[in-house]
Amino acid sequence: MEFEELGIGEECGVFGCLAAGHWPTELDVPHVITLGLVGLQHRGQESAGIVTSDGESAHSFKVHKGMGLVNHVFSEDSLKKLYVSNLGIGHTRYSTSGVSVLDNCQPFVVETLHGKIAVAHNGELTNAVRLRRKLMRHGVGLSTSSDSELITQLLAFTPPLEEDDTPDWVARIKNLMNETPTSYSLLMMHKDIIYAVRDPYGNRPLCIGRLVPVGDINGKGKNNAETEGWVVSSESCSFLSIGAEYYREVMPGEIVKISRYDVQTLDIVPRPQGDPSAFCIFEYVYFARPDSIFEGQMVYSVRRRCGQQLAIEAPVEADLVSTVPESATPAALGYAQKCGLPYIEVLCKNRYVGRTFIQPNMRLRQLGVAKKFGVLSDNFRGKRVVLIDDSIVRGNTISPIIKLLRESGAKEVHIRVASPPIKFPCYMGINIPTKEELIANRPEFKDLAGYIGADSVVYLSVEGLVSSVQESIKARQDQENNLKMNKFKSGKIGHCTACLVGEYPVELEW
Amino acid sequence: MEFEELGIGEECGVFGCLAAGHWPTELDVPHVITLGLVGLQHRGQESAGIVTSDGESAHSFKVHKGMGLVNHVFSEDSLKKLYVSNLGIGHTRYSTSGVSVLDNCQPFVVETLHGKIAVAHNGELTNAVRLRRKLMRHGVGLSTSSDSELITQLLAFTPPLEEDDTPDWVARIKNLMNETPTSYSLLMMHKDIIYAVRDPYGNRPLCIGRLVPVGDINGKGKNNAETEGWVVSSESCSFLSIGAEYYREVMPGEIVKISRYDVQTLDIVPRPQGDPSAFCIFEYVYFARPDSIFEGQMVYSVRRRCGQQLAIEAPVEADLVSTVPESATPAALGYAQKCGLPYIEVLCKNRYVGRTFIQPNMRLRQLGVAKKFGVLSDNFRGKRVVLIDDSIVRGNTISPIIKLLRESGAKEVHIRVASPPIKFPCYMGINIPTKEELIANRPEFKDLAGYIGADSVVYLSVEGLVSSVQESIKARQDQENNLKMNKFKSGKIGHCTACLVGEYPVELEW
Amino acid sequence: MEFEELGIGEECGVFGCLAAGHWPTELDVPHVITLGLVGLQHRGQESAGIVTSDGESAHSFKVHKGMGLVNHVFSEDSLKKLYVSNLGIGHTRYSTSGVSVLDNCQPFVVETLHGKIAVAHNGELTNAVRLRRKLMRHGVGLSTSSDSELITQLLAFTPPLEEDDTPDWVARIKNLMNETPTSYSLLMMHKDIIYAVRDPYGNRPLCIGRLVPVGDINGKGKNNAETEGWVVSSESCSFLSIGAEYYREVMPGEIVKISRYDVQTLDIVPRPQGDPSAFCIFEYVYFARPDSIFEGQMVYSVRRRCGQQLAIEAPVEADLVSTVPESATPAALGYAQKCGLPYIEVLCKNRYVGRTFIQPNMRLRQLGVAKKFGVLSDNFRGKRVVLIDDSIVRGNTISPIIKLLRESGAKEVHIRVASPPIKFPCYMGINIPTKEELIANRPEFKDLAGYIGADSVVYLSVEGLVSSVQESIKARQDQENNLKMNKFKSGKIGHCTACLVGEYPVELEW
Amino acid sequence: MEFEELGIGEECGVFGCLAAGHWPTELDVPHVITLGLVGLQHRGQESAGIVTSDGESAHSFKVHKGMGLVNHVFSEDSLKKLYVSNLGIGHTRYSTSGVSVLDNCQPFVVETLHGKIAVAHNGELTNAVRLRRKLMRHGVGLSTSSDSELITQLLAFTPPLEEDDTPDWVARIKNLMNETPTSYSLLMMHKDIIYAVRDPYGNRPLCIGRLVPVGDINGKGKNNAETEGWVVSSESCSFLSIGAEYYREVMPGEIVKISRYDVQTLDIVPRPQGDPSAFCIFEYVYFARPDSIFEGQMVYSVRRRCGQQLAIEAPVEADLVSTVPESATPAALGYAQKCGLPYIEVLCKNRYVGRTFIQPNMRLRQLGVAKKFGVLSDNFRGKRVVLIDDSIVRGNTISPIIKLLRESGAKEVHIRVASPPIKFPCYMGINIPTKEELIANRPEFKDLAGYIGADSVVYLSVEGLVSSVQESIKARQDQENNLKMNKFKSGKIGHCTACLVGEYPVELEW
Repeated sequence: MEFEELGIGEECGVFGCLAAGHWPTELDVPHVITLGLVGLQHRGQESAGIVTSDGESAHSFKVHKGMGLVNHVFSEDSLKKLYVSNLGIGHTRYSTSGVSVLDNCQPFVVETLHGKIAVAHNGELTNAVRLRRKLMRHGVGLSTSSDSELITQLLAFTPPLEEDDTPDWVARIKNLMNETPTSYSLLMMHKDIIYAVRDPYGNRPLCIGRLVPVGDINGKGKNNAETEGWVVSSESCSFLSIGAEYYREVMPGEIVKISRYDVQTLDIVPRPQGDPSAFCIFEYVYFARPDSIFEGQMVYSVRRRCGQQLAIEAPVEADLVSTVPESATPAALGYAQKCGLPYIEVLCKNRYVGRTFIQPNMRLRQLGVAKKFGVLSDNFRGKRVVLIDDSIVRGNTISPIIKLLRESGAKEVHIRVASPPIKFPCYMGINIPTKEELIANRPEFKDLAGYIGADSVVYLSVEGLVSSVQESIKARQDQENNLKMNKFKSGKIGHCTACLVGEYPVELEW
Repeated sequence: MEFEELGIGEECGVFGCLAAGHWPTELDVPHVITLGLVGLQHRGQESAGIVTSDGESAHSFKVHKGMGLVNHVFSEDSLKKLYVSNLGIGHTRYSTSGVSVLDNCQPFVVETLHGKIAVAHNGELTNAVRLRRKLMRHGVGLSTSSDSELITQLLAFTPPLEEDDTPDWVARIKNLMNETPTSYSLLMMHKDIIYAVRDPYGNRPLCIGRLVPVGDINGKGKNNAETEGWVVSSESCSFLSIGAEYYREVMPGEIVKISRYDVQTLDIVPRPQGDPSAFCIFEYVYFARPDSIFEGQMVYSVRRRCGQQLAIEAPVEADLVSTVPESATPAALGYAQKCGLPYIEVLCKNRYVGRTFIQPNMRLRQLGVAKKFGVLSDNFRGKRVVLIDDSIVRGNTISPIIKLLRESGAKEVHIRVASPPIKFPCYMGINIPTKEELIANRPEFKDLAGYIGADSVVYLSVEGLVSSVQESIKARQDQENNLKMNKFKSGKIGHCTACLVGEYPVELEW
Repeated sequence: MEFEELGIGEECGVFGCLAAGHWPTELDVPHVITLGLVGLQHRGQESAGIVTSDGESAHSFKVHKGMGLVNHVFSEDSLKKLYVSNLGIGHTRYSTSGVSVLDNCQPFVVETLHGKIAVAHNGELTNAVRLRRKLMRHGVGLSTSSDSELITQLLAFTPPLEEDDTPDWVARIKNLMNETPTSYSLLMMHKDIIYAVRDPYGNRPLCIGRLVPVGDINGKGKNNAETEGWVVSSESCSFLSIGAEYYREVMPGEIVKISRYDVQTLDIVPRPQGDPSAFCIFEYVYFARPDSIFEGQMVYSVRRRCGQQLAIEAPVEADLVSTVPESATPAALGYAQKCGLPYIEVLCKNRYVGRTFIQPNMRLRQLGVAKKFGVLSDNFRGKRVVLIDDSIVRGNTISPIIKLLRESGAKEVHIRVASPPIKFPCYMGINIPTKEELIANRPEFKDLAGYIGADSVVYLSVEGLVSSVQESIKARQDQENNLKMNKFKSGKIGHCTACLVGEYPVELEW
Repeated sequence: MEFEELGIGEECGVFGCLAAGHWPTELDVPHVITLGLVGLQHRGQESAGIVTSDGESAHSFKVHKGMGLVNHVFSEDSLKKLYVSNLGIGHTRYSTSGVSVLDNCQPFVVETLHGKIAVAHNGELTNAVRLRRKLMRHGVGLSTSSDSELITQLLAFTPPLEEDDTPDWVARIKNLMNETPTSYSLLMMHKDIIYAVRDPYGNRPLCIGRLVPVGDINGKGKNNAETEGWVVSSESCSFLSIGAEYYREVMPGEIVKISRYDVQTLDIVPRPQGDPSAFCIFEYVYFARPDSIFEGQMVYSVRRRCGQQLAIEAPVEADLVSTVPESATPAALGYAQKCGLPYIEVLCKNRYVGRTFIQPNMRLRQLGVAKKFGVLSDNFRGKRVVLIDDSIVRGNTISPIIKLLRESGAKEVHIRVASPPIKFPCYMGINIPTKEELIANRPEFKDLAGYIGADSVVYLSVEGLVSSVQESIKARQDQENNLKMNKFKSGKIGHCTACLVGEYPVELEW
């Protein structure tokens, strides 16, 4: 699937870093956060921001935000503004409903009675409208349309408000979690602490890494036992480039306190009894980077299993299996392996065309998807091709690709989609086109192969996807149960498949 | 006086425009505001912003803000973003205490229970610290350090807050005025109305203009009777360039409602009995543009009277009178005329060096004030020069000028200052250096002539300044009293001379 | 191989477009050139430029150039400057010897006695120093260090220079070709003609495409028989995105004239007798895009054959074959297929880190190549990996990758390199590190496996590479000979392998 | 006169600096040149450039150029690129005929057989077209439309060209001067020398200054006897800000060699016998800064004399004399003094509107000149005003000013123009509108007062202007003749009044 298949989304990435041990630290905190955000860039290319603190005063933060890619927003010069710092949080972001203004950039900072707090968040509150009215009814004016300001003002607002008291941030965070059940993974910084919080349904990812000494170019001085600092990130893929080791996931409902001394679980807010967790299955299908680890498994492995499952569900007589580069490649390799056909490349990508997602007004869009690909025609001339795509949302990008392959000599083109049809909107952070735009809801869906010009087209079943995702989780759970070491204490494992089946994990409010 | 004599200030300019008659208007509202702000550029060159509204929805404003001069921030492209609009308010601004960030740019916009409001303000709240704590104690987080956010949240906050009610903005504005007596001239926009408010002491200027048809290049079609729209501005100097006529001042304590139908006085909040008004005398001395009108008189005329008064108070035997260009020129012409000496130019200015005030880190500063002037040595070689300056605050810019004149052949250099020495800080919007930096508080002041290298130096007396300012106001008042048409109903006329004598119009709070 | 393995190069891409038929054309010439340059972006990311002409006056060109990527230099606004145009040429470029200034941007334009000419060129003149002195001795001052200015002034200079004569551009181009034998592929525009020229040795690529009607989104109106215009490009990969069909290569030594009426061969300048042609073999190994066609074969196919040949020359007992993404992927798939091992991905790339080649001063470089990759550890934990790379030049990027794989659980890591060791500098347009920096010339090369930390390392033989490249060319030649239709009239086919074996196609001059 | 009265001009400023004594120098050469160019900014705001040299190699210059004001082009960062340098030349420039491209920025640099030369020049060659053809006929391609490239290639071209010879730059410069008689003031840098050259007619200004130690803030360490370096500039007004003393003018036809050791006259190229010199009289009238010194007199003094002469030629019964700020102020003061009327200001200028000259497409232009002025109506209500302007070229700016004054209460408005009517185009560097656009050539000129809405309008006579300019020059010449020390050896003093009377100093060639 090409990005233009999706709408303008709300997806974001959050990243925090806190130096362990002696402060002021020698760890280059702003630079670590910048690199961490580069590792999350696929989650949001529209704006980026970092807020840092020296951890001494509750009243002074350093802030730098800007529009564009992380590498564009953070130059050596702008990084200088963020020093001296021992901890900090950062954010990358897509726009929501076209409001691409700097005002909405995260992290959001406010001064409260007890000093400044900064909040970075990924997700979308299902009851935002009600919460906004509640705050406004209390006399709070809201200066942006972002959920982050909402969260920040809710944290500031929570009574009792007595100047002499120590602020009980945990109580306030729990109060916030009671006000809004999902979806959010958020980082909150106050003075010398980063709080990492995941909503009770675990809808958005969040995990913790441990910074260890990198050593010199030959690895001398590398020491995996020593902890230089802690990082917390939307995805573990951002750890390798900064020399961090994967430590663990933040659990659904968990409130983690990260200080210079240690990483502590302060509380785990439970879901209503019986409710399973609801991690977004679309993160596995499309959004996350393949080398990230969710729920103990590599995203790449899930995608390959989807391809294998698809080969079982929808085999086809053909000469070769190929991929729409490059998000569908793991599924294509899985499909090819399972059905015994050769895996051969038929398209190559021009890296410089750019994801038109980001520059939605570019004239290039009109020229169609062909301008993004080169065709390796010698590889498939006269052959029957099975082309694996990861998903078909609107159906307007696969059609010109099929046409391209046919014009370049493909004898047959069979489409196999490594995920089920998307039929329902998402209100929890993935921006999916309106119902009318989804190909699965349109009349053309009845003869989809004819509509897109393929010889055949088959989607993966919902059951096939869910089993591909849950297979190894369950295997591990069984194993842990046998060993009585199950760490997933917060209840029944489930996944949010709302966009596929229309059942949302919580009731939606307007 | 050169701008580097002052510190980093809080001075600002506000400008609003509302189209009269049929909506959508044909009046180019965003462009009128931009030109209006260019006319107020001398009040703040650091950032500029405009918020406009179509006047139909209480929930949608168009916003554009940026760092730099008005002409830089507002291009034809960025102006397009502000359409369609029937009304709007704008702002130009200096930084306060080095916080030159975009976040602090005005106008400030928040969404309240009753829709969005935008606020632009000039001045400084004398009880800001207490008000910030009050709001935070109520659970409101504050995201900037600006008084504008404070004002906006106070307006949003005022109970009772009932969704079904029509918001009583006048009651809220009066509540705000009760919370904080001075200093502010502010514009508030909500839906289809602009409220123009001046604090009860009238410390900061604000006046209203009427847009009339400009006509073609030969003036055909010009029609002074028709009203195309209303403008409201910190200074009347911004009216000429947009084809507006001076209408009247907003009175101290007055709340004016500007709608498409008319301009109404909603209320006049009184000062505590016996308190005189307290318009900032420094606006006359230095800050305002000479063609602006305050209290019925042209600033230029006041400055010339100061020069005349100075000639009476401190005559000197010399060959010529000259000016430090160009703010002291009216005073110099007044001095020359009163004492009968020829007025001759001795310095010319290089327009391209820039006010170093604005770029405080420029290396050029070290090279001294000389780089900003050219010397017209043939005009004064061998002559005795009386050099008029409008004020001497720190004393570090006049000294190199005197040196320059002497090196270029001046026989004597006598300094006459057309305002009294500044001895006290301002807490109401003019940023004056700390007490220790003021030359009038330093030991060198005893032999100021020796210290700056002049043959003599004399300041205008406080009484001389006050009489120069009040003379024609009183004459007019007397005349109006005789005619029983006194419009200055809100009490005794006074001026804030706190920076000169140390008596502030209200008690200061911390 | 990662780009940091190479030095700062001279590689460039050239692209021209000329509308056929009626002028003024409806073809969007500047936009076609922009898209064509985006398709050549891999050949040069430092600067870009386009020069267009309406074809009527010999004295007026429209020019736009800038530093950075094509998408950055050419906005909708800057494209407007290039209209009205019926023909034009463009260029993308790397810097030569650190002189990354705008002055050196191509195309280069000069006015001559017969009007303006514009030149865009790819390659490096082996006798540039001598030619510069020759021109300067004639009294021509040279304002840049680029070979393009040199070529342009040589074209302007060629006598006889008589104002009344029609300029004989072909004679001048032939004179230029006699002055300098290699290496250049160049486009020259004058009035209404584009001349496309390839040096007699054919060292740099150049090919011609035909623009056909694209049709609407469903292909209606597409008409392969009609010619809308001609394009000429360094590589055919740029044709697909603009709706052009591959027409043919420009032959070594050929001078092609492209006019609105047709495409004509004006002359073919021969090589010294016996000299084989010398197309750069490194274009196949690394530089070109895999979907480009050179000498009748797809680059991708050559790379896959190199992998197959490598499997024959250097098999290894292992569990899986993988690639250093993504330039080595065709070779890895060829290797895996030939030796029957599964092809499995072990690394994924972070697209947002950027080729550090382009931003040589980035601090990120110090953090090593790991930051550019994610590790798919579940795919190879406990396995024996054969990792295919396309070339190893300095040896400093493969080493950390091997370390990464081992740390992530690889049991063995065997390196197979799909090209021979580079031992000699290139003076014809590919910038290769100095002899001392090349790993093949260093003492560590004796125990390369030990040095880079691999279990084994084997390069492809020179013979293996040459046969992989020439195999299908020869097959086709034989076929054509049998059919008596050989189009390669300009002599014996050879390839420049100077960087591998040290024998240069022409004598080098200084 | 407002700048929009003029067309798009060719005027420029040149500035050079060379450190005296020990090299590498401690003098901050690039910074001195930058400040020097700021002092010449009024001569060209479109682009700026500096080329520096360490003086050791003839083959390496450092170059930085850019579009915009000097302060914009030269930041601390870009200045770093110009080090280490012991000498350098710079340039500021207006566009010629709309070609505002970076390519045309000066200084122009070329490499010749004997190393690199850089050229900065002010003026316009009267035989440029012929010279361009001559060079092109010789086979030199010209890459820009600027006279600077022409001059540079002419210098490079001059035979004999023998590699072993020392280049005889003086012979080449003399050859250039023989090829083209006027108009140019130029700086040429080669290795360790700056050559300063003024054309035989002395049409454009050029003068030399001596850098002396500035001393600390109190002047300690200042030492007028020591020479730190030499500067050479279009106008002496740029000397004060860099701590340089006026040394002398470069004489018409003089070739000056500036080296680290001294300043030498190498030759003085004579004019054809009988030809008087022809310094541009418009420099006195309008273009130069008032504090500059030409031919031994301050520009301000000439302008004041023009005002005095105008009072004699065209007195008027009125209440006050005023100025169109600010170029006409010296003339207005002279007029007022001579006729005994009070000098009173009636207009003040908004500094932030900008010279629309520079941004010709600004929408503001349509709103007329009024937006640039504030009106000091209290100063002239009910009065008869004599308004002095320095020149009226097209007549479209004075008209709205008169209208403004009348609307604000002026009883009468009499215009007196301190220069004669402009009737003819300039081909020597001042861009004057076409003949048809000049008000003096139009039918409206017969009733100019009626056309512009004035009560009367009188221009200064040509004789009055010439005598105002030459009076003190002749007085000094007589004095020097008496003392037998006449330094003006190159013949009869004259001034170019071509734009007033149509007689050009040399025959014009096309």
